[in-house]
Amino acid sequence: MPNNSKYIVGVDLGGTNIVVGAMPEDGSREIAFRSAPTRATEGAESVVERINQLIEDVITVTSAETGVSRDNFLGVGVGAPGPLDREKGLIITAPNLGWKNFPLRDRIQAGTQLRTTLDNDANCATMGEAWTGAAKGARNVIGVTIGTGIGGGIIIDGKLFHGSSDVAGEIGHMTIDSTGRRCGCGNYGCLEAYASGTAIAERAREALAGETDGVLMQMCEGQMPKVTAQMVYKAAKAGDLIAIDVVRETARFLGAGIGALLNVLNPEVVVLAGGVVNAGEALFAPLKAEVRRRAFAPAVEACRIVPGALGASAGVVGAVAAFKAQTGNFATS
Amino acid sequence: MPNNSKYIVGVDLGGTNIVVGAMPEDGSREIAFRSAPTRATEGAESVVERINQLIEDVITVTSAETGVSRDNFLGVGVGAPGPLDREKGLIITAPNLGWKNFPLRDRIQAGTQLRTTLDNDANCATMGEAWTGAAKGARNVIGVTIGTGIGGGIIIDGKLFHGSSDVAGEIGHMTIDSTGRRCGCGNYGCLEAYASGTAIAERAREALAGETDGVLMQMCEGQMPKVTAQMVYKAAKAGDLIAIDVVRETARFLGAGIGALLNVLNPEVVVLAGGVVNAGEALFAPLKAEVRRRAFAPAVEACRIVPGALGASAGVVGAVAAFKAQTGNFATS
Repeated sequence: MPNNSKYIVGVDLGGTNIVVGAMPEDGSREIAFRSAPTRATEGAESVVERINQLIEDVITVTSAETGVSRDNFLGVGVGAPGPLDREKGLIITAPNLGWKNFPLRDRIQAGTQLRTTLDNDANCATMGEAWTGAAKGARNVIGVTIGTGIGGGIIIDGKLFHGSSDVAGEIGHMTIDSTGRRCGCGNYGCLEAYASGTAIAERAREALAGETDGVLMQMCEGQMPKVTAQMVYKAAKAGDLIAIDVVRETARFLGAGIGALLNVLNPEVVVLAGGVVNAGEALFAPLKAEVRRRAFAPAVEACRIVPGALGASAGVVGAVAAFKAQTGNFATS
Repeated sequence: MPNNSKYIVGVDLGGTNIVVGAMPEDGSREIAFRSAPTRATEGAESVVERINQLIEDVITVTSAETGVSRDNFLGVGVGAPGPLDREKGLIITAPNLGWKNFPLRDRIQAGTQLRTTLDNDANCATMGEAWTGAAKGARNVIGVTIGTGIGGGIIIDGKLFHGSSDVAGEIGHMTIDSTGRRCGCGNYGCLEAYASGTAIAERAREALAGETDGVLMQMCEGQMPKVTAQMVYKAAKAGDLIAIDVVRETARFLGAGIGALLNVLNPEVVVLAGGVVNAGEALFAPLKAEVRRRAFAPAVEACRIVPGALGASAGVVGAVAAFKAQTGNFATS
C-alpha cells in the first residue's frame, strides 16, 4: 500500500547556521533534521544554494525513510531574520546576513519547485514550541528567544500574531529603563540591551573589571573579551559570585519585561528559548519571583513560564507550522 | 409602520460618575445619554439601584424618541472597573468602589429583566473608539485612557483581546523604569506611576518645590496640594515653563510605553483618551517624536497616534459594542 501521508519541509535560517528538516503535516515526527553553516559572507545566492541543497537532501532522506515520493511534499516553510514582508516573501533587512529587500521566498520556490512561505525566525520558534513543544496545547503564548539579541513571538488564539506590518513580537525592544543602556537598535533601555546573550557577556565584563581571581576569570583565561553568556551560566553554577550576581540581575531585567507582557497580554505560557535555557533554575527561580512582584496576581496565576523543549529544532518545527498557517487554516490547538 | 430597529443600552460605571445611553445595534446614533454621580460610599446596592433607574430612564426616553417598545431592547452592556470575571459577571475587586466579588451583571439583569454583559471599562472605551470613534475601521487598535490611573484596551482583528484571565490591556502597568517610582499597584517604575493624571500632578508639585511665582503657582493659589493635571495642561498653554517641562516629560514617558507597544503589537491606531487629550499638541507632538525614536520604522509608519473622538461617551458606546461581541459575532470592521 502506498504511503499517502503529506510532508512539509521547514527551514530555519540563522546568521550562523541553517537548519532544515521535514515533518508530516500532523507534526507527529521530526525527520531528517540537517544543518550547515550559513556563511553569509559568500553572498546571498550562495546561501540560497546551500538552503536548496539541504532541502533536497532532506527530501531524499525522508522519502527513503518513509517510502513517499516527492509529490507527497506540500512545500517549504522558511523562518528567517526580519524585518520581512511575508506577503511579498522579502527579507527587508537582515543585518547579520547583510541582505536588503532580498526575495528569499521566491528564490527557494524557484530552486525547489515547491510552494514556499516566509515568516520571522523568532515567530517560528514560538510557533514550534506552541505546536509540539513546551507550550503545546496553549492558545495564548509568548515566546522569548535569547541569543545574540532577543527575539519574540506572540500567539493569540492559536495563531501567530503579526501586527499591522509584520513587526509584532519585537519583545527585545520594549523599554525597561527609559534612560538606560543604549541598544543596538538606537533606542535606550531596551530589554535586549540588558538581557541578550551579548548584553549578559558585556555586563559580566563590566562586573569583572578590577578582578583578578574567580571561576569566570579562569574560564576566560584572564581575557575579558572572551567572556560569553554561556561562560557566565557555567561559572554561576560553579559558585562564582560575580557570575551569580550577573545571572540574578539578568533575571530581574527579564522579569521586568516579562511582567509587563503578563499585564498587557495575559498569556497562558511564556516560553524562554535560546542559550539562556542553560542557566537553569539559577535564572528561572529569581525570574519567576520578579514576575510575581511585577504582574497582577490573576495574570501570574494564569501563566506558566517555562524553558523551550525543542532546542535547536524549534525554528524548523515552527516554520512547518507557519507554512500550514499561511496555506490553510491552522491553529496550535 | 412599526419601528423594528433593535436597541442596546450601554452603561459606563466609573468611580465618580455613571453614564448610561442607548444605541441602535448598528451604532449609527447615540440616544438619551444620561449621567449621575456614582456615590460609591452609599454602598453597592444603592449604586445598582441608581444604574437600573438610569437604564429605565434611557429606555423611556429612547422609546419616546424612536417609537419603539421595550421589546426592541436587546439588552444592556456594562463597562466597569476591574479586575473582573466576564464569564461569571463578577467585579473581583474595584478599589475605587470598595467592591469585592460583586455580581454586578446579575444584579442589573435581575433589576431590568434584560440580558446583561460585563466588560472592563478601559476595554469598553477602546472598543467605542474603534467602533464609531477615532479608530473607526481599524482592526488592530490600542487604547490608552489616562485619568486617575492609566487603563488600556487591546483590539486584535476587530475584537477585544482579553487574554487568559481577563487581565489583558493593563498598559498602565508596563515597567518603563525598572528601578523607578513606586506605583499604586506595588510595583516600581510602571507607566502609570509617571504619566497618570495623579502622577502628572505629583511631578508638577515636585517641580514647583521652592518656586514662588509663575502661572501654575497662581492657578493653585500657592497651595501645591491643589495642583491637578488639568491645571498643568492649562498652565503649559499659557507659557508656564515648569508646566511645559512637566508636559514634555509626560510625553517622553508615554512615548517610552507606547513605543514599546508598537514594537510588541504593531497596531494600526493608538487612541489616547481621558483628560490628557486637553493637553493638545504640546503633548502629542513630543509624544510622537519619542515614539519615532523608540519604535521600529515599519511599526511607526503603520501606526496613527490620535486623541479619542468620543469623549465621555466612549465607555457607553464600547459597552454597547461589547454586548454585541459577547452575545453574537461582532468585530469593529
